[in-house]
Amino acid sequence: MDLKAKLRHVMDFPKKGVDFIDITTVLQDKDAFKYAMDQLLAAAKDIDFDIIVGPESRGFIFGAPMAYLLNKGFVPIRKRGKLPYKTIEVEYELEYGTDIMEMHADAIKEGQKVLIVDDLLATGGTTISNIKLVEQLGGIVTGIIYLIELEYLHGREKLKGYHVHSIVKFQE
Amino acid sequence: MDLKAKLRHVMDFPKKGVDFIDITTVLQDKDAFKYAMDQLLAAAKDIDFDIIVGPESRGFIFGAPMAYLLNKGFVPIRKRGKLPYKTIEVEYELEYGTDIMEMHADAIKEGQKVLIVDDLLATGGTTISNIKLVEQLGGIVTGIIYLIELEYLHGREKLKGYHVHSIVKFQE
Repeated sequence: MDLKAKLRHVMDFPKKGVDFIDITTVLQDKDAFKYAMDQLLAAAKDIDFDIIVGPESRGFIFGAPMAYLLNKGFVPIRKRGKLPYKTIEVEYELEYGTDIMEMHADAIKEGQKVLIVDDLLATGGTTISNIKLVEQLGGIVTGIIYLIELEYLHGREKLKGYHVHSIVKFQE
Repeated sequence: MDLKAKLRHVMDFPKKGVDFIDITTVLQDKDAFKYAMDQLLAAAKDIDFDIIVGPESRGFIFGAPMAYLLNKGFVPIRKRGKLPYKTIEVEYELEYGTDIMEMHADAIKEGQKVLIVDDLLATGGTTISNIKLVEQLGGIVTGIIYLIELEYLHGREKLKGYHVHSIVKFQE
């Protein structure tokens, strides 16, 4: 299946000049969603990990099914103030200013091998923040899987030393 | 498995006096997560539906795996400004004032049978908003499944006429 053709491009979202890749056309098409999930599951086959971490909120859509199907636990990373229990946090850059991402302080145990799953690799900023949270708790990131990679933003260069895999790649 | 015992209670979150049910302890425990998902999947067996709708963002965690495993599409309902394409919207009540939930205008086709999945039924306000969005596009809500129901908040009374199922019930 040509998954790329199933993704919708929305120009000028969330701001002028951005070519936004809309995954909802894949999600709502049962065959495309199944195909996308099957590719993500296949990509996880070579990775040794104990638990999946996914950032709010599109990371939940792909990370949670993978966790269930591969019989692992799932850890959500959320924006500030959403997680009810004791958290650790990391600051990340927004266009103007910064914001905070949080993970529960008991979510990862020291030495646990972690697979990070998200929908899209752009500049890599979100993933760097996710890695910081996992490593702060002594977790070891053994793999990072995305449905989509925007290669022209060179996010992969920020993730040197990590095992990075993406299913659909956009060169421009 | 006693799923109730796997859920964490966090007192006074997000505000004083609230006994918040934290699902992350279930998610991060692979056996508990598998058990919870299996119960949700079993609950969907008796429901005739074409597509699953789940609200941001905990609805994604349960709705997306169910969609994949039951070979259906998944439609996210999101907070204002998150969905990139043309949306329909509904206003819902917050403690102070109101906010907007959105669904893509092409997410549901007229006559499609819809299963709504969310983590928790409290007062039912979120689900009523979800139903309004689905019905606005001509969809037919044939079932609503929750992992948790806070029976003492009587949300189910707001959902009369709909097939409602929950896995873990709290009476007080």
